Amino acid sequence: VHDRWSDGLLEAGFGDPVLAELVGWPSRVRRMVEVEAALGRALTAVGLIPADAGAAITQACDPDRLDLEALAARAAVAPTPVIPLVRALSHEVDELAAAWIHHGATSQDIIDTATVLQLRDALDHLEARLLEVGDRCAQLADRHRDTVMSGRTLGQQAVPITFGLKAARWLGALDRRVEQLCWVRPRLVLVQLGGAAGTSAVYGEQGLAVAEALASELGLGTPDLPWHAERDRIVEIAGALAGVATTVTAIGGDLVGLASSEVAEVREAASAGPSSSAMPHKRNPVHAAAARAAGRLALGETQVLTMSAADHEHERAAGAWQAEWVALPSALVRTGGAVERLGAALAGLEVDARRARDNLEAAAGLTGSEALATALTPTFGRVRAQRIVGELTARAAAEGRHLREVAASSEELTQVIDDDELTRAVDPASSLQLASPLIDRALRSHDRLRAGGAR
Amino acid sequence: VHDRWSDGLLEAGFGDPVLAELVGWPSRVRRMVEVEAALGRALTAVGLIPADAGAAITQACDPDRLDLEALAARAAVAPTPVIPLVRALSHEVDELAAAWIHHGATSQDIIDTATVLQLRDALDHLEARLLEVGDRCAQLADRHRDTVMSGRTLGQQAVPITFGLKAARWLGALDRRVEQLCWVRPRLVLVQLGGAAGTSAVYGEQGLAVAEALASELGLGTPDLPWHAERDRIVEIAGALAGVATTVTAIGGDLVGLASSEVAEVREAASAGPSSSAMPHKRNPVHAAAARAAGRLALGETQVLTMSAADHEHERAAGAWQAEWVALPSALVRTGGAVERLGAALAGLEVDARRARDNLEAAAGLTGSEALATALTPTFGRVRAQRIVGELTARAAAEGRHLREVAASSEELTQVIDDDELTRAVDPASSLQLASPLIDRALRSHDRLRAGGAR
Amino acid sequence: VHDRWSDGLLEAGFGDPVLAELVGWPSRVRRMVEVEAALGRALTAVGLIPADAGAAITQACDPDRLDLEALAARAAVAPTPVIPLVRALSHEVDELAAAWIHHGATSQDIIDTATVLQLRDALDHLEARLLEVGDRCAQLADRHRDTVMSGRTLGQQAVPITFGLKAARWLGALDRRVEQLCWVRPRLVLVQLGGAAGTSAVYGEQGLAVAEALASELGLGTPDLPWHAERDRIVEIAGALAGVATTVTAIGGDLVGLASSEVAEVREAASAGPSSSAMPHKRNPVHAAAARAAGRLALGETQVLTMSAADHEHERAAGAWQAEWVALPSALVRTGGAVERLGAALAGLEVDARRARDNLEAAAGLTGSEALATALTPTFGRVRAQRIVGELTARAAAEGRHLREVAASSEELTQVIDDDELTRAVDPASSLQLASPLIDRALRSHDRLRAGGAR
Amino acid sequence: VHDRWSDGLLEAGFGDPVLAELVGWPSRVRRMVEVEAALGRALTAVGLIPADAGAAITQACDPDRLDLEALAARAAVAPTPVIPLVRALSHEVDELAAAWIHHGATSQDIIDTATVLQLRDALDHLEARLLEVGDRCAQLADRHRDTVMSGRTLGQQAVPITFGLKAARWLGALDRRVEQLCWVRPRLVLVQLGGAAGTSAVYGEQGLAVAEALASELGLGTPDLPWHAERDRIVEIAGALAGVATTVTAIGGDLVGLASSEVAEVREAASAGPSSSAMPHKRNPVHAAAARAAGRLALGETQVLTMSAADHEHERAAGAWQAEWVALPSALVRTGGAVERLGAALAGLEVDARRARDNLEAAAGLTGSEALATALTPTFGRVRAQRIVGELTARAAAEGRHLREVAASSEELTQVIDDDELTRAVDPASSLQLASPLIDRALRSHDRLRAGGAR
Repeated sequence: VHDRWSDGLLEAGFGDPVLAELVGWPSRVRRMVEVEAALGRALTAVGLIPADAGAAITQACDPDRLDLEALAARAAVAPTPVIPLVRALSHEVDELAAAWIHHGATSQDIIDTATVLQLRDALDHLEARLLEVGDRCAQLADRHRDTVMSGRTLGQQAVPITFGLKAARWLGALDRRVEQLCWVRPRLVLVQLGGAAGTSAVYGEQGLAVAEALASELGLGTPDLPWHAERDRIVEIAGALAGVATTVTAIGGDLVGLASSEVAEVREAASAGPSSSAMPHKRNPVHAAAARAAGRLALGETQVLTMSAADHEHERAAGAWQAEWVALPSALVRTGGAVERLGAALAGLEVDARRARDNLEAAAGLTGSEALATALTPTFGRVRAQRIVGELTARAAAEGRHLREVAASSEELTQVIDDDELTRAVDPASSLQLASPLIDRALRSHDRLRAGGAR
Repeated sequence: VHDRWSDGLLEAGFGDPVLAELVGWPSRVRRMVEVEAALGRALTAVGLIPADAGAAITQACDPDRLDLEALAARAAVAPTPVIPLVRALSHEVDELAAAWIHHGATSQDIIDTATVLQLRDALDHLEARLLEVGDRCAQLADRHRDTVMSGRTLGQQAVPITFGLKAARWLGALDRRVEQLCWVRPRLVLVQLGGAAGTSAVYGEQGLAVAEALASELGLGTPDLPWHAERDRIVEIAGALAGVATTVTAIGGDLVGLASSEVAEVREAASAGPSSSAMPHKRNPVHAAAARAAGRLALGETQVLTMSAADHEHERAAGAWQAEWVALPSALVRTGGAVERLGAALAGLEVDARRARDNLEAAAGLTGSEALATALTPTFGRVRAQRIVGELTARAAAEGRHLREVAASSEELTQVIDDDELTRAVDPASSLQLASPLIDRALRSHDRLRAGGAR
Repeated sequence: VHDRWSDGLLEAGFGDPVLAELVGWPSRVRRMVEVEAALGRALTAVGLIPADAGAAITQACDPDRLDLEALAARAAVAPTPVIPLVRALSHEVDELAAAWIHHGATSQDIIDTATVLQLRDALDHLEARLLEVGDRCAQLADRHRDTVMSGRTLGQQAVPITFGLKAARWLGALDRRVEQLCWVRPRLVLVQLGGAAGTSAVYGEQGLAVAEALASELGLGTPDLPWHAERDRIVEIAGALAGVATTVTAIGGDLVGLASSEVAEVREAASAGPSSSAMPHKRNPVHAAAARAAGRLALGETQVLTMSAADHEHERAAGAWQAEWVALPSALVRTGGAVERLGAALAGLEVDARRARDNLEAAAGLTGSEALATALTPTFGRVRAQRIVGELTARAAAEGRHLREVAASSEELTQVIDDDELTRAVDPASSLQLASPLIDRALRSHDRLRAGGAR
Repeated sequence: VHDRWSDGLLEAGFGDPVLAELVGWPSRVRRMVEVEAALGRALTAVGLIPADAGAAITQACDPDRLDLEALAARAAVAPTPVIPLVRALSHEVDELAAAWIHHGATSQDIIDTATVLQLRDALDHLEARLLEVGDRCAQLADRHRDTVMSGRTLGQQAVPITFGLKAARWLGALDRRVEQLCWVRPRLVLVQLGGAAGTSAVYGEQGLAVAEALASELGLGTPDLPWHAERDRIVEIAGALAGVATTVTAIGGDLVGLASSEVAEVREAASAGPSSSAMPHKRNPVHAAAARAAGRLALGETQVLTMSAADHEHERAAGAWQAEWVALPSALVRTGGAVERLGAALAGLEVDARRARDNLEAAAGLTGSEALATALTPTFGRVRAQRIVGELTARAAAEGRHLREVAASSEELTQVIDDDELTRAVDPASSLQLASPLIDRALRSHDRLRAGGAR
């Protein structure tokens, strides 16, 4: 089995094996056979081929009788895989089926429509998995709505946030990815049928009727026009997958950062074995790292899809379209891999609320600088308040003292702000009144999406 | 004026000057000032700052009093341009305004919201221009619904199409770009307000009320949560712009191909001067080439935006976010430039219907091979029909004779297909019955979009 | 066998099967085992482990005894594939080997060094294939040094060139790709050995000696410092592969263009079967199109490598490095696939010299406009000469007459240029004196490269 | 001045103003004029134009007499900027110069050669700046050769390293970037002269002589063949710039990470003003963040260059080449901006050696796990030693005790390792014997490069 370099994707854990099954080569062949069969029935229904031909073609189109191995070998040297496929199907069937199989179609009709069928299944799976990862974020958001931690901007402790709010923001981003996939779906999950150059020449006036019958057979939509040469729909799905990949990569990055030794506010569930071949003590964020790797790999393929679509010539491109054959399934498998690994990272995520609070306290009140400056603004005006607090924080940092203590020793301050106000200003909790309502908004939106709002 | 390298974009004609105005630096500064003013009024409305402060801030926020030149110089060395901006605004105004300006906000609130305001105008312009370019395609589609030309797949003449159908396909793709921009718009044209780390700490429970008041002042939507760190909305607009850029690039590519000396089925309107510095006879597809250049340039920036969003850390990134400051306006201007140049190419496009027919006839019937094979399929079955016609076309090509003539001299054929049938098989018109209905579908969709269906 | 989606690359004919073998997963495992064995011997040689341990480890490291299937399954869930590998090796061997295998190394040492060993073989193969494709270009350049054809700029016939000159330019570009690979090779084909964080802590002062002994065992170079975290060498190979992919893509594009129906100056050798599933007459540039598809696919992976290297954190990245595991071999296989398909396109390329001349003649002298303007410049000055010839060519095009004829009927001209001069000005041959010497320069450079100049 | 959106690059501090000057539009015009002048002299030298014409052209080619503003306006609507330029030059000069200016050249000759002249200066500057940033790394490496800190892999503390070793690794990467630029330079800093389609038709047999004379006038090399259509040299410089951008981005990322509040081992020099508009206490890694932003922006342009070169058709592309006009200078300015900002970050970098040691000690011996396992390997074998230490570190972490202490209380261990050995195993210093020699290797290589080894 392991005679192919590219198995490395799955072996490295960067691919989603379910998607690999759904969009792989054997599935592609099965789907192409399914399209040929459905086309036969559609042509019969419209009356363009003899009444028996449709059934005969359907009977002929049995993927289990195909020698996939041999077909693959021929496909690698054929202009399109449809040519050896139709030949193989034609040779094994009765005369009637052989006469009318692939009637009026071109390779691209079969390949694009088969791809769309794969994609429909793939989107079902990907959306479901994204929603499940979202569920986990929702759970974290709810459970940790009061888990205070440091917000970090440009790598620096800024002001307090809660871990729940962070998880709610992740949830919002994941839900928007589902929304985008749902938006793309009906724009792309469409039959492709136009014949050699998109005019359905062989079907004459009945071209649209055949397309609709085929779409109906396969449960697909019918586009205004064949889309063989306008690949903007592919750019749309590439963009949606890039959206998933980037969202996952960013969340994975936050996890890696929060799991770092010095922050240590989260860690992935302990795995069975060691996470380093050299250092027994390591507890690496293995899943988050893999999610980031898979996300990056996915972006390479979405970039190929976008580049290719930029360059589709006339009625069928010489190279741009063919690149999609590989890049689209690969983009799906890699994106799905990123989602899987993020899911694994979140599933067993341990949040160390105490450590989060300790880190915040280690800042010795500095993360209250905004609050303190705000408290002083009515008295001193904004510019001077900022400067005063800037000096206080610099002194606190230099002397290793708590900001509250340094502030309390400043005469300038104590004249305008009493001890209670000062304490409140530098107390994280006092600044987090909005976190919980924001979390609720994200949870409600997720529930609506779950309830079908996305479709 | 020409002291900046990057003017080259506009000087090379690859940028849209209207967008350059709408999303450039001076507009950015004006928009930031506008946001500070609106924030002042919002805070007053909610009651978080003194009743007079809002008006005082609004009065202070007069972009015409700012020294943009000096501000730009300070911005280049400041961590964010908001820091010198607020300082400049604070210094020139009355005490009350100085005390409360920028109250509770952080640089990102101002920059992101100002960007969104720019973007809203930019999208208005871009959508309008895309619709106008679409109008021209619609006109071409309607006018040339019977202009027969060769369809071309992998660079080879395939079967006949009409120029009108090609233009209708372009129209469909352009309209889908408008639809995508319309889908992105309400997801992105949102206020950003969360303070230092997205908790609106300074506003406490009233954070949402302030956000809504600010949004209302500016005519923007309010998001579920602040989106300072989840940049997937930026990936969405990047994807939509990449969609425009790739669609334009592909259409531009078709124009360049059709205008090539050997095809010569279209040409751009003659310009005032020569199109080559060496060859007086050249009539280059100058606008189409520029559209392709601008489209490529736009894709570079959309790629930056996508990459950056993949890597936004914690509550504010160190680098990823800042890259957006340049890449987003640049992506807009370059994308708009591509649209402008495509519009110019199409505006004066001359379609040479006669040449198109001549090119088709030069194929000596070969483009009827599919039709002929189809006509023979009932008799011979698909495989044999294809082989027979394959041999005929090879012979026709080798002997330089018309396919009809070679076919008419084949006994095997003349037994099963009479002269009329043969003539009809290789007659382009007989295969184009669907073209006009397809064009009508695209035109109707465009009308619906024009009529407001997109919003 | 066909249970993996990614086989699609090879099945679609877009991968180089030799490279797939050289850089695939099974080869990776063998190479990792080889590195562990060599490390054992190196440690013995330096005296850091018992004298017998090196031999025992080498004996233990027998890839044929490994269950690759089981190892792959474990690798997919392990933090790195080295962890289950070392475990597998440790369990099957004698105690001494088990004690000292992987001593002082970390997973990255093994993976990076194994990758480098794969890469060395891959570069041997890729360079050899590029040189062979170059040989074919050299042959075409030499054979067609007098095959006159039209130069084409912006898709328009410009001035005459020769097909030999075009082939020579391709040759130059391919040779420069070999030169770049040769430049990258010694910078990258280096041992990686630094232990957990690049300090070779376990080896103490002997770290460099171990690295050198290991390099010597494997025939690799030794870098100044371990390069575990500075992945710029990977960016260099990514850049070199992108260079190959873009050069191949561009040549493939020229072939597709020259093979187009209306140009028809080249065509690929006829293949056994049809090149379209719908149109029996088609003779598609199948290999050139596949080369372009593979080239595009390769660029996706080189982009991943470049992006990843941009983001390698501290002493080992969480995601960026892991993405290389897949992207680097994939980039090699795709790039190699592009080279293979270009080689196939060129191998059987038929050049139609007569058609090339016909196309040029169809321009009716317009491609002599530069020459004519040049001939008039001494008399009229540049600006006026250009304008005169511009008017003549416009008239010639409008009236469908030959430029020579129109020019000969212009009194303004006949006063200053006689018939012979006019004929010479619009004769292609008169403008091609430099083509042959240029071809010779490219051929000589290729010979030098072949003779070893590149290394 | 601020009427152009794209000034934002400089205003945001992401561009190198020196490079903006060297490669901007006014410089481009000057260089084009310089090329026209040099071509005139070259043609005179070879004897192809009258003896006086060369001097007359040189005199005419005075950029200071050009109205750059008007020229820019015309360039934006012209097919190439050379057309209005030559027209402007022709109109202002004597007849002889007007007759012979631009003789035998095409726009691309002038634009490409002018670009190369700009590039030569730009490379001088960029290499010099990279070497200077390298000098600073060398200084840090030398000064901090004994500054012990934690190595970090996947974000986790791994084993000790020194800050000096880290800086030496940065130095090595920066020096390799200089080497790559030096390798690219002679391959690209070449004259472009081939006339309309690369045959130098107008010069006949003397084409090479003219090219050499022009190269000599301008101090450039002469290529084997004109390279108008083979843009692989552009891919090479794009790759080299991407190398710089990625190296800078990665170093910037390390700085941001090391400056994070919880690590705090480095910080940038305090700037004059605040680094946040909301939080007075913040001391953001502003320069490092800007370097990362600029690096990302640069990668967008290098990607455009690579994509464009993939698609250059025939003798001159319709779009691909034109995109280079903007993308190449922009790539240079952005890359240079990244270098500048990294230089600023390093220039004032404060390294907190004490904090680095504290962080390491906070790991409570865990970073000695590799050393401890190594010490136990002779007795227990590798697998068991790893397991024992794995259990000890888990216990130490759980109980919040130092690894040494936990280890010392394990009977299993104390039987085989005495207290001294244990102490040494977990002492960082004992594992860093190689750091200093490695640093010396990097410093020596830098000195060699400085001494001219790179050229």
